Amino acid sequence: MEISNEIKTQVLVQALPYIQKYYNKVVVIKYGGNAMINEDLKNAVMSDLVLLSLVGIKVVLVHGGGPEITEMLKRVGKESKFVNGLRYTDEETAEIVQMVLAGKINKNLVSLLHQHQGKAMGLCGIDGAMFQVEKHKGDADLGFVGDVTAVDTAPIQVALQNGYIPVISTVGADDQGNIYNINADTAAAQIAASLHAENLILMTDIKGLLRDKDDENTLIPFVQVSEVPSLIRQGIISGGMIPKIECCVESVRRGVKKAVILDGRIAHSILIEIFSDEGIGTMFY
Amino acid sequence: MEISNEIKTQVLVQALPYIQKYYNKVVVIKYGGNAMINEDLKNAVMSDLVLLSLVGIKVVLVHGGGPEITEMLKRVGKESKFVNGLRYTDEETAEIVQMVLAGKINKNLVSLLHQHQGKAMGLCGIDGAMFQVEKHKGDADLGFVGDVTAVDTAPIQVALQNGYIPVISTVGADDQGNIYNINADTAAAQIAASLHAENLILMTDIKGLLRDKDDENTLIPFVQVSEVPSLIRQGIISGGMIPKIECCVESVRRGVKKAVILDGRIAHSILIEIFSDEGIGTMFY
Amino acid sequence: MEISNEIKTQVLVQALPYIQKYYNKVVVIKYGGNAMINEDLKNAVMSDLVLLSLVGIKVVLVHGGGPEITEMLKRVGKESKFVNGLRYTDEETAEIVQMVLAGKINKNLVSLLHQHQGKAMGLCGIDGAMFQVEKHKGDADLGFVGDVTAVDTAPIQVALQNGYIPVISTVGADDQGNIYNINADTAAAQIAASLHAENLILMTDIKGLLRDKDDENTLIPFVQVSEVPSLIRQGIISGGMIPKIECCVESVRRGVKKAVILDGRIAHSILIEIFSDEGIGTMFY
Amino acid sequence: MEISNEIKTQVLVQALPYIQKYYNKVVVIKYGGNAMINEDLKNAVMSDLVLLSLVGIKVVLVHGGGPEITEMLKRVGKESKFVNGLRYTDEETAEIVQMVLAGKINKNLVSLLHQHQGKAMGLCGIDGAMFQVEKHKGDADLGFVGDVTAVDTAPIQVALQNGYIPVISTVGADDQGNIYNINADTAAAQIAASLHAENLILMTDIKGLLRDKDDENTLIPFVQVSEVPSLIRQGIISGGMIPKIECCVESVRRGVKKAVILDGRIAHSILIEIFSDEGIGTMFY
Amino acid sequence: MEISNEIKTQVLVQALPYIQKYYNKVVVIKYGGNAMINEDLKNAVMSDLVLLSLVGIKVVLVHGGGPEITEMLKRVGKESKFVNGLRYTDEETAEIVQMVLAGKINKNLVSLLHQHQGKAMGLCGIDGAMFQVEKHKGDADLGFVGDVTAVDTAPIQVALQNGYIPVISTVGADDQGNIYNINADTAAAQIAASLHAENLILMTDIKGLLRDKDDENTLIPFVQVSEVPSLIRQGIISGGMIPKIECCVESVRRGVKKAVILDGRIAHSILIEIFSDEGIGTMFY
Amino acid sequence: MEISNEIKTQVLVQALPYIQKYYNKVVVIKYGGNAMINEDLKNAVMSDLVLLSLVGIKVVLVHGGGPEITEMLKRVGKESKFVNGLRYTDEETAEIVQMVLAGKINKNLVSLLHQHQGKAMGLCGIDGAMFQVEKHKGDADLGFVGDVTAVDTAPIQVALQNGYIPVISTVGADDQGNIYNINADTAAAQIAASLHAENLILMTDIKGLLRDKDDENTLIPFVQVSEVPSLIRQGIISGGMIPKIECCVESVRRGVKKAVILDGRIAHSILIEIFSDEGIGTMFY
Repeated sequence: MEISNEIKTQVLVQALPYIQKYYNKVVVIKYGGNAMINEDLKNAVMSDLVLLSLVGIKVVLVHGGGPEITEMLKRVGKESKFVNGLRYTDEETAEIVQMVLAGKINKNLVSLLHQHQGKAMGLCGIDGAMFQVEKHKGDADLGFVGDVTAVDTAPIQVALQNGYIPVISTVGADDQGNIYNINADTAAAQIAASLHAENLILMTDIKGLLRDKDDENTLIPFVQVSEVPSLIRQGIISGGMIPKIECCVESVRRGVKKAVILDGRIAHSILIEIFSDEGIGTMFY
Repeated sequence: MEISNEIKTQVLVQALPYIQKYYNKVVVIKYGGNAMINEDLKNAVMSDLVLLSLVGIKVVLVHGGGPEITEMLKRVGKESKFVNGLRYTDEETAEIVQMVLAGKINKNLVSLLHQHQGKAMGLCGIDGAMFQVEKHKGDADLGFVGDVTAVDTAPIQVALQNGYIPVISTVGADDQGNIYNINADTAAAQIAASLHAENLILMTDIKGLLRDKDDENTLIPFVQVSEVPSLIRQGIISGGMIPKIECCVESVRRGVKKAVILDGRIAHSILIEIFSDEGIGTMFY
Repeated sequence: MEISNEIKTQVLVQALPYIQKYYNKVVVIKYGGNAMINEDLKNAVMSDLVLLSLVGIKVVLVHGGGPEITEMLKRVGKESKFVNGLRYTDEETAEIVQMVLAGKINKNLVSLLHQHQGKAMGLCGIDGAMFQVEKHKGDADLGFVGDVTAVDTAPIQVALQNGYIPVISTVGADDQGNIYNINADTAAAQIAASLHAENLILMTDIKGLLRDKDDENTLIPFVQVSEVPSLIRQGIISGGMIPKIECCVESVRRGVKKAVILDGRIAHSILIEIFSDEGIGTMFY
Repeated sequence: MEISNEIKTQVLVQALPYIQKYYNKVVVIKYGGNAMINEDLKNAVMSDLVLLSLVGIKVVLVHGGGPEITEMLKRVGKESKFVNGLRYTDEETAEIVQMVLAGKINKNLVSLLHQHQGKAMGLCGIDGAMFQVEKHKGDADLGFVGDVTAVDTAPIQVALQNGYIPVISTVGADDQGNIYNINADTAAAQIAASLHAENLILMTDIKGLLRDKDDENTLIPFVQVSEVPSLIRQGIISGGMIPKIECCVESVRRGVKKAVILDGRIAHSILIEIFSDEGIGTMFY
Repeated sequence: MEISNEIKTQVLVQALPYIQKYYNKVVVIKYGGNAMINEDLKNAVMSDLVLLSLVGIKVVLVHGGGPEITEMLKRVGKESKFVNGLRYTDEETAEIVQMVLAGKINKNLVSLLHQHQGKAMGLCGIDGAMFQVEKHKGDADLGFVGDVTAVDTAPIQVALQNGYIPVISTVGADDQGNIYNINADTAAAQIAASLHAENLILMTDIKGLLRDKDDENTLIPFVQVSEVPSLIRQGIISGGMIPKIECCVESVRRGVKKAVILDGRIAHSILIEIFSDEGIGTMFY
Repeated sequence: MEISNEIKTQVLVQALPYIQKYYNKVVVIKYGGNAMINEDLKNAVMSDLVLLSLVGIKVVLVHGGGPEITEMLKRVGKESKFVNGLRYTDEETAEIVQMVLAGKINKNLVSLLHQHQGKAMGLCGIDGAMFQVEKHKGDADLGFVGDVTAVDTAPIQVALQNGYIPVISTVGADDQGNIYNINADTAAAQIAASLHAENLILMTDIKGLLRDKDDENTLIPFVQVSEVPSLIRQGIISGGMIPKIECCVESVRRGVKKAVILDGRIAHSILIEIFSDEGIGTMFY
């Protein structure tokens, strides 16, 4: 579609205050879901990241990779074991996770950013001992599933200061060299908090937090973190949304200005989020 | 007009390669004509400059101010004297020029940029002895009309490096403290050349160079500087266009990548010029 | 007069401790009165400023320009209106003030400093939004007379750090772009306080504070700021001296080491003030 | 074994001139073979690298990973295809190579260096577009086997300047995002040349270049690069040694001071090489 | 003696944790006694200092010179005068002390360090007014014996930051230019405290603090500074050891991590102290 | 004597162009003769150096010390031996020279500069291996008399950049640690040339170069270096003046702007030389 010069300039001029607002600020994006599978969405995300980084925003990309891990486990004939419905990560699984995340997905994203004329550097929680990690403490033993207890942001800062977009896989190692698989949402939240990010964006495959989860017209656009417990009690926040929203709440509590559950199924949803007032998805502040 | 998110993102994404291209490059804009008189155009230019500066372009604004000088001369009851049709600048006129350019227009532009959330610093050729100036050499004695023989870019660089848009009035002083009025087009061209600018933009009140000057559909979009003499001989470049285009040619010869005669009557023509391939107006390269 | 080498060296050697004392310190000089009118005094001031700046003192020049404003108002046939004996500044007057101060006097001073081999940069309160300004609050509405509510010293520091003497006109703009005329004494005092200056020098056309205002032999050389209220009650400080001395008191209260009312009618009084113990004029500390 | 203080000090003092010689110099180590398999050798190499880096040597580690690639290919049931005896790398193989090298081995080495109190950052040729790569040109089509045509050393320098040991996997991507497997010896040689390294060390499973390849007592300790063609003609350099030694020759030709074929089967052979005159293995200069 | 590669590497690898521990830390060494007289010991100390400095330790050498002062006094036929058994330092003696320490010994040590490929700069307490000094206050008037009341570490830091080993003679001057002889142990302790040194090493001609001063097998390797008063009461610390140990205690109290009484009669005792856990001599912490 | 404010300001203002001219330039002063013996002259020189350094001149002081060396040799009862009328420097003499120059005179000058509120650092040719030195080659063997073959200006620059006046004794050491006595005039000339000094000043006890050496009214104020051979042939330059003037010629040939033979018997002759056009003494250019 040919867009008239009037429209072009109107859009660019409207973007101006947002560019000013985010100038030199850190935005951490947890990348996952459909936006990582569909080729068009993928390219849209990459071009968004390069654009943000060009207008002076310090973009940090944190990615997961569930589907590709599952596929690779299948290829090596590794049987899955579940504990209370959660995947148990034995040492062999952890190794596959590491290879798929830090070896394949991470470097492919770096390469894709370069194809969009960006400059990126692929890191994981092991590099520069970025993640201090310990075995996940929960009701059930999940094997090599880890929790990040501290983030050394030095390797991320080194990349940002030298003009690279850091692309981060959420695997880490403890002092004995054991490899741990780490939930990407919580890792992204901790990175955002440690970097004093302006914005944490969790890309998902839903429209946002819905008052009625079967009706996309009931999107709740803004939530104060203090309202969350009440929303949980009312059952509006439930199931898989609980841990995601806890990441948002936690990061906001630790100083991130806003955390957003964003619909990754819409092309360029990141741009719309950053460059407009209404935003899309649900914003926690 | 409400613009859809699809259009918005399309425009922003299309702007990406141009932002990449101009990142950290110097663009010198000679501001004048209607774009300096009409309030809407004026605001459009200011918001364009702030936007360019936010996406990492080093913008330098050089301005004239003919109409306001004429008006002020009237107010002080100063009679004008012409030599071969050109205004003779006696000492009193030079003083009025200095006050109007460096005192009124310059500072008002700085103030206007701040109203658009920009950061600007108003300078003239006298500050930091930026312009080395001598009496204009021509057929007729025009009084205190000066030529810039060298540009010390240090004051401009100081402003740029500290995040200010330099706004420059084209008055200068010689070693004895005589004040000279300097043509803004030629001063802008010399500043662009001395700064090794990527781009020199001369804002005018015409569509560009026309093959038939009475038909705006005959715009010549691109001209190699080597073609200029032939275009002069053919009479396509004539009258007041000759000195303007000589500025373009001279700046390109001294290393500026491209020089553009831009239609300042169109709102946001600077944005369109920078953020699209076709550009508007006539480009010399 | 030929001065013997013995005298020369004696003077230079006596200057030594003062050079040491002021090394790398900020001295703010409010320039006005006769010293701005008489050509010899003017040149003496400029050469003093260049000398101070060469021996490592960070000189900031703040200037007024009452007589030239009055003259220009006359030239444009602008009638003056007075409120309680104070000049009312309508928009047209503010514009003339801006032109005369920021356009004419400021740049002429910069040029004159260059003629004395100095390096200067002419700024006003609008540049880099140096002055945050609001309408003056007083008994009577004086129109566009403004008060400085905060000083952003960044543009001044940028000039100083790059070796330029900042020459500052005391006009400012509010967020809507209205231009305000600001009293140069109070602006200088605020600049001195914001820069943590060592010294504020107010050049005047009087010998200093006199115990008997008709007898120059009754000069009071030193005044503690705590003595000022009593001196006002005694009528020793009275009339136009009150606001000037309040500037001194205010700046000293905010950390300036000493503020001096200096006789600008004496050539090189700045040098004498800086390079001798007794100083001349009245010093508030 | 308890070593006496006399011996300790003697060793340290003897190391002194070598520490002086290599201070702030770059040493590129191609790590492979037995030294990457045997746990004790592995730990010895890591502790050597940390020691070198502590005494001011800028260590760059380039690694291969043949055996682990072979093993992983087996696990996914990928059949190998050979062309003229060389492994053909189809897209699926390239993906496995990338995962094993950049995901598993690379990050495990980084983790191991941290266990030895070092600081490391794992990168591959894709990061920061470090390798410019094109399809290998040879007699036979080997699929996604690539040649490095240029090295952008910026990501390596960034790591070194911030105190990280760069650990580099030799996979790269072209502008279309195709992944290529790159021979680690040649990549290390090119990195060494691009970094103007003092030293290139190729760790192998042989004693060095032997005059009689069946007799380890016939080690040739020093070879001038100009002697290599004659040694090839004589059959002393033959088989798999030819490409390795060509890497040495090429890097020396491009400015590396010396290139060494080192016996990786001896623990701490790197230390011995760096900290003694005779060195071990064969040195090309 | 030829040392096997196995031993060599073992020693170097064992040194690793100590290099890590002392990296970029300051170690102040008071040099004196036999280690300054015996040529072999002297060379051993110099090579130790160069080695420490190469592995990133910031070495500061403080030296005395009693025997050479005594010898020089003899040469000029200067009779010694004693007060309560302590040498009285008249002006002439102070001058000899200054010449011998700052002129001869200091520069000879600098030269010797250069012969060991080090980089050194010889300073004394007078340079850059490093020592603020006053007449020693004690029971008896000792003439020009001084106490350091403050250390300006700037000259030392300047040397260290530019890669020079500062070699410091302990003579100082007061504001009137009187020269004072200062005890090297106490000066070293004050320098160490002012530099927040990791380590203060006092080289002596004894094995360390002995429980039975006639039996070298009764060495006390570690002493907490809080134990010192009790050790004095028991007579274990007595005589000349008291002031030395008070230097240790004082420096530890002011933040030095450990202070060591080291046996300078053993070659390379500094290396052994730094590069092993047990150390040698007595350590106060 | 009380000097009027008029005179004071006149002197300071006249100094202005000289301060501008020498700003940030290096001036090397060879200090010797009467100016080093007479207390008043000594204090005058020190205050001059501090003044020059405060007005931004980079002062380097190089000193000799013949009379004090002679006196010290006497005190130790060292007999002098002469070769062709020149003093033979055996090892013992060299040691005395080193002590007197680097230990006594050097540090006393540093202390004296501090008493004049300056900041100084005392160095000699041994520090930082500043002088590369070899045995003097001449007709007769003079023992440990050395020639400077190269100057490493790093230690001098380190002092200057950190605000210290470097005070330099002209003793040096060769690679074997032999100490050499070096002529201070030639060393100063070489330092000036290596530092690209603006000015080399040799302080002497004569008025300058006289056309008739018995008539002080025949001073030759300016000499082009090309005129020197002719002046030697005419016998106007003769005896001890020849080596001094050769130092001037050599330094000017190597880029020093001017070299001056200055009368050190006049108080503050350095100030007069720097701050006036005529200068005093004889200037070579």
